[in-house]
Amino acid sequence: MSLASMQLEVARNEEGIRAAVTSLSEQFGERCQTSLSLREQHAHTTSWLPNQPPDAVVFAHSTEEVAEIVKICAALRVPIIPFGTGSSLEGHLNAPGGGISLDLSLMNEIIAVHPEDLDCVVQPGVTRKQLNAYLRDTGLFFPIDPGADASIGGMAATRASGTNAVLYGTMKDVVLGLTVVMPDGTVVKTGGRAKKSSAGYDLTRLMIGSEGTLGVITEITLKLNGIPEAVSGGIASFDSIADCCNTVIEAVQYGIPVARIELLDALSVKSVNAYSKLTLPESPLLLVEFHGSDAGVREQAERFGEIAAENSLKNFEWTADPEERNRLWAARHDAYWAGCGLAPERTGLSTDVCVPISRLADCVTATHDDIAENGLLGPIVGHVGDGNFHVLVLTDINDPEAIAQTEAFVERLNYRAIEMGGTCTGEHGVGQGKMKYLPKEHGAGVAVMAAIKRSLDPLNIMNPGKIIAIDTE
Amino acid sequence: MSLASMQLEVARNEEGIRAAVTSLSEQFGERCQTSLSLREQHAHTTSWLPNQPPDAVVFAHSTEEVAEIVKICAALRVPIIPFGTGSSLEGHLNAPGGGISLDLSLMNEIIAVHPEDLDCVVQPGVTRKQLNAYLRDTGLFFPIDPGADASIGGMAATRASGTNAVLYGTMKDVVLGLTVVMPDGTVVKTGGRAKKSSAGYDLTRLMIGSEGTLGVITEITLKLNGIPEAVSGGIASFDSIADCCNTVIEAVQYGIPVARIELLDALSVKSVNAYSKLTLPESPLLLVEFHGSDAGVREQAERFGEIAAENSLKNFEWTADPEERNRLWAARHDAYWAGCGLAPERTGLSTDVCVPISRLADCVTATHDDIAENGLLGPIVGHVGDGNFHVLVLTDINDPEAIAQTEAFVERLNYRAIEMGGTCTGEHGVGQGKMKYLPKEHGAGVAVMAAIKRSLDPLNIMNPGKIIAIDTE
Repeated sequence: MSLASMQLEVARNEEGIRAAVTSLSEQFGERCQTSLSLREQHAHTTSWLPNQPPDAVVFAHSTEEVAEIVKICAALRVPIIPFGTGSSLEGHLNAPGGGISLDLSLMNEIIAVHPEDLDCVVQPGVTRKQLNAYLRDTGLFFPIDPGADASIGGMAATRASGTNAVLYGTMKDVVLGLTVVMPDGTVVKTGGRAKKSSAGYDLTRLMIGSEGTLGVITEITLKLNGIPEAVSGGIASFDSIADCCNTVIEAVQYGIPVARIELLDALSVKSVNAYSKLTLPESPLLLVEFHGSDAGVREQAERFGEIAAENSLKNFEWTADPEERNRLWAARHDAYWAGCGLAPERTGLSTDVCVPISRLADCVTATHDDIAENGLLGPIVGHVGDGNFHVLVLTDINDPEAIAQTEAFVERLNYRAIEMGGTCTGEHGVGQGKMKYLPKEHGAGVAVMAAIKRSLDPLNIMNPGKIIAIDTE
Repeated sequence: MSLASMQLEVARNEEGIRAAVTSLSEQFGERCQTSLSLREQHAHTTSWLPNQPPDAVVFAHSTEEVAEIVKICAALRVPIIPFGTGSSLEGHLNAPGGGISLDLSLMNEIIAVHPEDLDCVVQPGVTRKQLNAYLRDTGLFFPIDPGADASIGGMAATRASGTNAVLYGTMKDVVLGLTVVMPDGTVVKTGGRAKKSSAGYDLTRLMIGSEGTLGVITEITLKLNGIPEAVSGGIASFDSIADCCNTVIEAVQYGIPVARIELLDALSVKSVNAYSKLTLPESPLLLVEFHGSDAGVREQAERFGEIAAENSLKNFEWTADPEERNRLWAARHDAYWAGCGLAPERTGLSTDVCVPISRLADCVTATHDDIAENGLLGPIVGHVGDGNFHVLVLTDINDPEAIAQTEAFVERLNYRAIEMGGTCTGEHGVGQGKMKYLPKEHGAGVAVMAAIKRSLDPLNIMNPGKIIAIDTE
């Protein structure tokens, strides 16, 4: 087992690629780039997998241009890899068969905000922070917050979530409709602006999480939320990870509408303190936040406090000051980089299992023990209100033995979660790195996915070698 | 234009059907029935479309039996029409090319309830009332409530919702996973029990709303909710429908987490009073309900009252007594039958548009005017918190002129909603009756749906002639 074995081979169509790059260069001039550094930067992202650069990077300005690019590539059977900000983690952006990285970062216009309907329409290159900055004066916000300042298009493509998902859902819950350029260049609008619909197959949800393998998302209609009247929260520290998890389980089962509830194990706290210059108590802790009316938030916090107290709460610190709170959550969002900082000479591999909430303590403690028993360096953080947690395994990727050990750990972790009724990926997606786990998780469903892929992308040009392998004629 | 023109022709495979009925009779004995009355009852349901009975009705006991039936029908290229309780409204259960009605009502076992994870696993024939009766002592409930006591399988297949959807979502939001028998008899498990996942294409959401055209749902994992600590609500009456709608729009925009907010126009109130022996004030009214903690519910109700007062509220009556409240909501759920009672000699055709909330007042008042101008009999009720409302047009289906007038009204209504960014169906689904509106609503998306249908059901045996037309080889 080696890292490269996680990457599916995709045959290179040398002649087609040459013709496509020539044609795109003619048509897009400076917006078609072939420098190695740019190509490598468009493949590597934050993945731990070997870099497989595309042959060119093309920057599109509009849905029409995307359709043109797709038509050129389809005619020549050349792979297209849609690119947002490059913050994906599972080799989503690698080009195993070469081809064109279709960079959507210049399509970063916020097309419309409809405060009266609590929705907005954005281009795929808009990032979540850009959108929230834009919305600041409307009283509305967009809640989905993966760690990185990802693009909305990329977030839709990977079915992303983040710390707010406990209360506000994931990308599948907040996207009302999409514009998608299909693998033959047809432009399709899915969904609409009504809050619900039963009008035919749910193409919106099919595209969300398809990771660019079924088409290119070029416009997104998003639900927005009113900024809560009151926000309060704090840091609850415990002696053990099990106490943290049991507090979470009971809070969820009790139905407390907590907005965010995040776990950091002691090692993560240490890394976050160092990276973000904080002085959090270096024991397992929960960061919690409640959104609502003044009275509602007070009520939630009291009930949470009671549950925490029954689970050997050591200390609870309120963070009523908004600036202090923002600093804390910024630190949480930087936990990936903080974790990497524990061993700068190593490479971080982020896992992403998610289990039914009742199995959270079992899965986290078994994983924590596994890390200790195998002498791995792996801080744990998690969106534990959803049963989702990440181990950032820090590995020397020049040491085959270390790689093998890491791979074995990841495999045990993923199978552990799947056996508990969970998933190998709560929010990062499959890309190249998790393809081998899908048969265990979905069984015969993988063949159904392959049939859909074949029907919509018979030439296998849309981000080939990701999610599922298909044969083409 | 005639009602029959809403039904797509599907060629009959006479020989195959004969062989399938013989084979299924041998295998299932008494559980394969061919009496005309039973066949007609399995086709007609509450639709206004002409009855197209299947050739036999087969009652399945298990996923394995469903797979066997599907395999027999696939081998002989015979249509299969999955049947739950028969409460669909758009000809979903008709058999335009004959074939087998696959009755799932005997698969009505509640397989597991996991209170610790707030979920349960049920067979498709379990009805929503059966599930809630079963859950009574657990402190949990299943919130989705279409008017009828529909089966959970049917509700998943049509992406149903109902009065509680404002707060709790629709079937797309509460289904965690499915077991589906695919058109070739393969058994596929989609989703899982984790609250979120990014592991591949969202087959769960693809199956939800596919109306039996992509496979037979034989098991459903559902999220459940805690019974709210406090429930309160009441009846707010207004002088005009516009005042009702504007109250709803402002309440939604303000972000009041109302659980239910239903509109009844004066004619609906009159019909409900007569049918359910109530004495509601016969003017446009809103039924509202708030779920939460004691303090939360009080806060919501106060804010709602302020908004209603600014919109010329005439009268507000609290219904604090649970029995009184249940009687009121039972009456709301019987509004379809109450409406039909306004003209027992006529047939009711229920429309189902849904628009962005800001267009609710525009769409409802334009529709109300259209009804008046054309002398139609059409009470209006609606899940207005979601922008969804129903006109029940009462028509003499023996009078071609009346039918033409009704058809023209429905067409105007559906196009009006679609032009406002809405949908021709918020929750009833497409079936036969709404197929002709899909191109206007989804454009090139219809071809994508057809490609998916062709790839998963190449023989076109799964509920053919519904949602989309496909060619087979």
